[in-house]
Amino acid sequence: MTKQLLLLPGDGIGPEVTGQVRRVLDALDLDIETGEALFGGAAIDAEGVPVSDETVARALAADAVLMGAVGGPKWANQPYDKRPEAGLLRLREAMNVYANLRPARCFSALADASSLKRELVEGLDIMFVRELVGGVYFGKPRGIEELPDGERRGLNTHQYTTSEIRRVARAAFDLAKGRSGRVCSVEKSNVMEAGLLWREEVQRLRDQEYPDIELSHMLADNCAMQLVKNPKQFDTILTDNLFGDMLSDEAAMLTGSLGLLPSAALGEPGKPGLYEPIHGSAPDIAGQGLANPAAAILSLAMAVRHSFGDERAAGRIERAVEAAIEGGTRTRDIGGEATTEQMGSAIVQSL
Amino acid sequence: MTKQLLLLPGDGIGPEVTGQVRRVLDALDLDIETGEALFGGAAIDAEGVPVSDETVARALAADAVLMGAVGGPKWANQPYDKRPEAGLLRLREAMNVYANLRPARCFSALADASSLKRELVEGLDIMFVRELVGGVYFGKPRGIEELPDGERRGLNTHQYTTSEIRRVARAAFDLAKGRSGRVCSVEKSNVMEAGLLWREEVQRLRDQEYPDIELSHMLADNCAMQLVKNPKQFDTILTDNLFGDMLSDEAAMLTGSLGLLPSAALGEPGKPGLYEPIHGSAPDIAGQGLANPAAAILSLAMAVRHSFGDERAAGRIERAVEAAIEGGTRTRDIGGEATTEQMGSAIVQSL
Ligand SMILES: CC(C)[C@H](C(=O)O)[C@@H](O)C(=O)O
Ligand SMILES: CC(C)[C@H](C(=O)O)[C@@H](O)C(=O)O
Repeated sequence: MTKQLLLLPGDGIGPEVTGQVRRVLDALDLDIETGEALFGGAAIDAEGVPVSDETVARALAADAVLMGAVGGPKWANQPYDKRPEAGLLRLREAMNVYANLRPARCFSALADASSLKRELVEGLDIMFVRELVGGVYFGKPRGIEELPDGERRGLNTHQYTTSEIRRVARAAFDLAKGRSGRVCSVEKSNVMEAGLLWREEVQRLRDQEYPDIELSHMLADNCAMQLVKNPKQFDTILTDNLFGDMLSDEAAMLTGSLGLLPSAALGEPGKPGLYEPIHGSAPDIAGQGLANPAAAILSLAMAVRHSFGDERAAGRIERAVEAAIEGGTRTRDIGGEATTEQMGSAIVQSL
Repeated sequence: MTKQLLLLPGDGIGPEVTGQVRRVLDALDLDIETGEALFGGAAIDAEGVPVSDETVARALAADAVLMGAVGGPKWANQPYDKRPEAGLLRLREAMNVYANLRPARCFSALADASSLKRELVEGLDIMFVRELVGGVYFGKPRGIEELPDGERRGLNTHQYTTSEIRRVARAAFDLAKGRSGRVCSVEKSNVMEAGLLWREEVQRLRDQEYPDIELSHMLADNCAMQLVKNPKQFDTILTDNLFGDMLSDEAAMLTGSLGLLPSAALGEPGKPGLYEPIHGSAPDIAGQGLANPAAAILSLAMAVRHSFGDERAAGRIERAVEAAIEGGTRTRDIGGEATTEQMGSAIVQSL
């Protein structure tokens, strides 16, 4: 059956990298129908909102959504709930994609690009499973209020329920089964009750249903340190929305291959997933043909695997990206001079 | 006038490193009177609470408090508000030490111990100013509640008011004046209203009262990345309690000199400060004479500077630590075989 893929090129380098995704799709000749919609700043400019109701409806009706990048200085002064990022948060919430898979892999050919010594990152392969539709990102009450004495108060609510914790932990445990079976759950249970609940519920699910999973627990500050000290100690890291945001970015930078890292956000089985490269919109190089399309193309591979169920084609895309890089085609971010187009061509040729 | 210093050796390696602080104090021959009290797990064992009312009162009456380390597996199953960490949080709150100074300095002689390539960390000297008595650590409502459907909900409240933000920003700006004058303020204003208020108030204070400070703003996830990519871009980093916890630990690990990093927590001028090495209680090596006392001794230097106003003696202690390390005396954590006692002796001799 024809699968529906909605492309949201977005802002900055987003349209450029999504352009190369289209080339890969054409070359693959799979039974995929693509649509496209405005998103983020581009949607604000054209439609007045970072994501329209119609785009949300189309995303929910698709099999997968692939986003390029979102945001930029042009929209920095938008009202809070009309910023490009608000569009992304709304889409994540509407799609209920609670499990955010963020691999932090070090490509051997690029290990020297890492800030870390080669031996510490070569072969690094961490899978982050970050909760994506809860926690302090979405908790209410929230806002800024005027206090009687002329002061203001900024307020956000951090919260998780048993079922919110269990469903994302389940996703992490299931993924870990296909990896080493080791999961490290990260919170600040020594300071936050919501972190203590997180820890207890994750442990309980492991004990009830996943006896083969080797589960450990770590405090978020210690995890931030251990990622620097010895990142290869980790296999799968399960954590909440806010800690996952920071720790997965830290780990991504460790690999030295930021332009190569994809992500997948998954909801209930059978529902569409949301895929995005983890790099930003990079307004400084937008429109110059310098962006690395590999992360977006690897995000397509994740979509093909997780939403279209075609493991073979996913592997083919991933191997093509690796072959292109090992073959020496490199964009500026990974130490070369190739253009976005040339990088795309090398990948298409390797397919 | 005689200054009062209250020592809280605490748990694990705490008593060992505080023992060496005493030796340095004796050698210095300053007009300082020391007292000592139980704290953390040690206080739980002897007094049933991680910090007694009497100890809190003595801390408030002192000129400075120096804490060794707190916590350990022995007390992991204490009720939530009776854990060693709860004692530390209570003390911070009672002393109202809202500005936590955490230097992340790379000692040149130890630059090779870093996970990062030498050129990225050599000369690194970041000063974190972390808000310490607010945010999600202390916000109410908080707790774990049973929901009607058999689920549970964990809840914490993240909040800051104008004056809480301004007083810690002021501390950061004042410190930065004696450094490069550059301050980077870190939050997640793209996701949290409390972060947006943080950003606005920090900027407003800069514009009103600190025109010479060069202020920039950065998102916390980006900061976690930039610390790995190019840590030397930072001079003073101002951030909230939770982000400061993670980011300052990440930066500390970058230096390769965890056993050398002190911290100071300061409140209103004239009130006592709380000083602690940033390393933990290290139960795995406790009681074996292997711990590095340098961080505790450098915390004493910070106390002498900030609470006793004796810049000269503070500098003397700091130079003695540096001389001891450069002279080749190294505990295990920094690649040598010296004992706690030997490291202390080398520092005392260098005084
Ligand atoms: C753009 C922003 C809202 C987003 C987040 O904080 O989740 C981004 O940093 C990410 O990690 O995808
Ligand atoms: C022990 C713990 C409560 C504490 C914190 O989270 O503040 C520690 O990690 C620190 O940074 O001093």
